[in-house]
Amino acid sequence: VKKDNGPARGMRDLLPEVMRVRDDLMGIITDVYRGYGYGRIETPCLEDIARLSSNEGGENEKLVYRVLKRGLEPDLLGQESVASLVDLGLRFDLTVPLTRFYANNHAVLPQPFRSLQIGSVWRAERPQKGRYRQFTQCDIDIIGEATVLAEAELIEATLTALSRLGLEDLNVRLSDRRILAALAQAADIPAECTGSLFITLDKLDKLGWDGVKAELRARGFEPASVEKSAELVAELQGVAANSRWDILPKILPALSESVCEDMATTAACLGRMFADGVVSWAFDPTLVRGMGYYTGQIFEVAHPGSTSSIAGGGRYDKLIGKTLGQDMPACGFSLGFERIAELVTTETAEDKLAVIIEEDVAIADAVSAARSLRQDGRIVSVIRRRGQFGQLLSRLEAERYTSYIVCKTDGIEDERTLSPRRAEREPRQRPAE
Amino acid sequence: VKKDNGPARGMRDLLPEVMRVRDDLMGIITDVYRGYGYGRIETPCLEDIARLSSNEGGENEKLVYRVLKRGLEPDLLGQESVASLVDLGLRFDLTVPLTRFYANNHAVLPQPFRSLQIGSVWRAERPQKGRYRQFTQCDIDIIGEATVLAEAELIEATLTALSRLGLEDLNVRLSDRRILAALAQAADIPAECTGSLFITLDKLDKLGWDGVKAELRARGFEPASVEKSAELVAELQGVAANSRWDILPKILPALSESVCEDMATTAACLGRMFADGVVSWAFDPTLVRGMGYYTGQIFEVAHPGSTSSIAGGGRYDKLIGKTLGQDMPACGFSLGFERIAELVTTETAEDKLAVIIEEDVAIADAVSAARSLRQDGRIVSVIRRRGQFGQLLSRLEAERYTSYIVCKTDGIEDERTLSPRRAEREPRQRPAE
Repeated sequence: VKKDNGPARGMRDLLPEVMRVRDDLMGIITDVYRGYGYGRIETPCLEDIARLSSNEGGENEKLVYRVLKRGLEPDLLGQESVASLVDLGLRFDLTVPLTRFYANNHAVLPQPFRSLQIGSVWRAERPQKGRYRQFTQCDIDIIGEATVLAEAELIEATLTALSRLGLEDLNVRLSDRRILAALAQAADIPAECTGSLFITLDKLDKLGWDGVKAELRARGFEPASVEKSAELVAELQGVAANSRWDILPKILPALSESVCEDMATTAACLGRMFADGVVSWAFDPTLVRGMGYYTGQIFEVAHPGSTSSIAGGGRYDKLIGKTLGQDMPACGFSLGFERIAELVTTETAEDKLAVIIEEDVAIADAVSAARSLRQDGRIVSVIRRRGQFGQLLSRLEAERYTSYIVCKTDGIEDERTLSPRRAEREPRQRPAE
Repeated sequence: VKKDNGPARGMRDLLPEVMRVRDDLMGIITDVYRGYGYGRIETPCLEDIARLSSNEGGENEKLVYRVLKRGLEPDLLGQESVASLVDLGLRFDLTVPLTRFYANNHAVLPQPFRSLQIGSVWRAERPQKGRYRQFTQCDIDIIGEATVLAEAELIEATLTALSRLGLEDLNVRLSDRRILAALAQAADIPAECTGSLFITLDKLDKLGWDGVKAELRARGFEPASVEKSAELVAELQGVAANSRWDILPKILPALSESVCEDMATTAACLGRMFADGVVSWAFDPTLVRGMGYYTGQIFEVAHPGSTSSIAGGGRYDKLIGKTLGQDMPACGFSLGFERIAELVTTETAEDKLAVIIEEDVAIADAVSAARSLRQDGRIVSVIRRRGQFGQLLSRLEAERYTSYIVCKTDGIEDERTLSPRRAEREPRQRPAE
C-alpha cells in the first residue's frame, strides 16, 4: 500500500466487511428508537463558525476544522487574521446542530419532539490508536418534556437498543447535577469553583480518594471543603446502596424536594424496566459527565468490554433557550457508536453465490443466468473465469462466497458449496492505524 | 422562524418526514445492489486538497470547500497566500475518493471489486431552487472487469433499483466515447478540440441543430467540419433506429471492431433484460456525459418527471491507473439521489400509537404501560396530557398518529383511532428554499 494514497491524517477507509457490521448496527438502533417514536433528522455537516465557538462545546471547540470563505483572492493582502478568512466549520458534535435545528424548525415539529441523529462529526485531535478525527455519533433527544418521563424513556430505549445488539452485563450509573451543586454548597465551595470540583471528582475511579484530595488542594480548595466533600460523597454512597432517597435532603440541606422525587421516580422506572436482571443500575454521586450544559439528571452506561462508558447523557434545560430565545426542557442520550462497533462482532453468515462464467459464454447469456438465480433474494455475483480453477475457488472462499455455479456455453452446472470459514485464518481487514 | 438559526447558506435541515422517505429509498437501493454483490464502503469526507485539485474533477474543483491547517497562528504574518493555509478540502464527488480508496486497499479487496457508496458531497455552487451545497450521491462501481459485463450489470442493477422505487417509464440512452472520438476524427477535427465539440453536441436537445452549428462555428470549428459532424450524427441516428451495429464502421472508418461488438453485446443484454417493456433504451450518438475521464461506453437514465437525467455513468479505464500506478479497468453508475427523492413520494402508512398520560399517573406506570404496548413492533410514543383534550387530539392527528390510548390511574382505556389524513391539508414541511 502506497503511503500517499492513505486517507487524510487521523481518518480511515471503511471496507465492505466493516461497513456491513456498522450498517447492521445502525439498522437495529434505528428500529428500536423508531418504536419509541424517535424520528431521524439530519443537519448539514457545516455550521457557522460563530455557532461552533459559543463556548457550549467546551474543549471540543478548539478541535474544529475551519472552512475558508469562498471567493477569496489567492493572495493575503489586506487580510489581518486567520479568523477573518473563515465563516464555517465542521461540527464537533450533534448537540449544537440540534439546538439550531430546533430553533429553526420548532413550529412544524411534534410536541414533545423526539429526535434521532446518526451522523459524522469531526475533531482534530492528536491521532491515537482507535480514535479517529472523523467518527460517527448517534444521539437521541426529547425536547419539550419537563418530567423524568424523558430520562426514563431515554434510558429504557437505549438499553433496549444495546441489548438488541447483543451486549450483556450493562450497568447504568445515575446521578443529578443538582445533587452535585448542593454537595458543593454544603462543602462551602463557591459557585464559580464547582466546575473545577466536578472535574476532579470525576477522576475518583482513576485517582482514588488520596489522589482526588491532593488534586483539589493543588487547585486551591480549602482543606476543610475538601474533607467535607469527601465525607458527603461517602454519605451519598450509603444512600445509593440502600436507595433511601428520602435521606438525601438530610445530607444535603440545600437540595430541593423535587430532586429527590425525580431520583425516586427514575429509580422506580429502572427497577421495573429490567426485572430480569440483564441490566444493573446504581446511583453514583461521583458521576459528573463532561459537558457544562447539564442541569438535572445525568447517566452513563458501562459495559465490561470497554474501559470508558458506551453511552451517556442527561438533562439540559437551559441550552436550547439560548438559541430559541425561550427556555425549553430537553434531555438527551448519546451512544458511543464507535466503541459499540468495536464491541459487537456480528457474524452474519451471508448466502453468497458466485456465477463463474467460462471465457466463451456470451455475456448476455451470463447476465441472464445470474438474473434468474437472483430471484429469491440471495447475493449473486458474476465472475469471469481467469487463470487456474483451483486458485479461483480459493480466492472465492477468501472473499466469503458460500457456493458457486459454473456457467458454460451448453448450460449451467449444479451448484457447489464453498467453505468461506477457511478464509478467517487470513486477515481480511488491516488493523486500525 | 428566526433567520439567523437557519442552516448554513445553500444547505438545509432534513425533517423526520423527509428523512423517513430518504432512509426508505436508501434501504431499497442498498438491498438491490447488495443482491448483485456490491458492498458498501465509506471514505472520509475530507481529502487532501492536492487530490481535489488534480483536474479530474473538472469544474467541480472550483467549488471545493477548503479547510484550514490546524495549529495556525491567529495572525497572518509571514503567510504568502491563501493556498499556503489549506491542506484539506471537502469532497465534491465520490469518484475521486474511490480511486484513492482502491489504490490504498486493493490488496485486500475482491476481484473484481463491486463498490457501493452512499454519502454526502459538497459544492459551493450559486444557491438556487432545488440545488443544495451539501447533497447525497449514490454510486456503484465495478473495478477490475474489462468487458461490457460491467456495463450490462450496472445498467440492470440500477434499473432494477429504480423500478423497485416505483419509478416507471424509464429510458436508457447509450453511447460510447470511442464513437464520439471516431466521429470527430472523420469530421477532421483535431484531437485537442474534441472536448469542445462534445460540450456543444451535448446541448443538441436544448439548442437544436441550428444552435449547435452556430455555437460550433463561434468556437472556431471549420464550417466543413461542422457540416460533416452533423451529417455523421444523422447517419448514426439511423443506426440507432435499426440497431445495425455492423454499419457503424462504414460510417466511421476509424472505429475499431471491438467498439461495435461492445455495443452489440450491451444492446443484446438490454434487449433481454427488460422484455416486459417497462424500460426502453436507445443508442444516442448525441449523448456525451460531462466528465473528461470516460473512455468507453457511457449511459444515462431519463424519467418523464425530471428534465435532467436521474442516473448516469460509464467506463473510465484510465482514471484509477493515475492513482494506482497501473491501468485498471473500471465502470461506474451514479444515481441522482436528490432528484430521485423528489420524484418518489412514498406514502408509508405507519401505525403510530399515542399513549396519553393523565397528569396524576405515576411515570413508572406510564412507562410500563407503553412498554407492554410496544411489544409487537409498533411505534408507541408517550405523551403527557396538557391543555384541552380536543386540541390534543387535533395535534396528534397533525403529527400523523393513527390511534391513541388514554392511561389513567385506574388503568388503560380502549384504543381509539385517529384520522391522520386530515393533517395532509396542512403543510408539514416548509418548501425548499
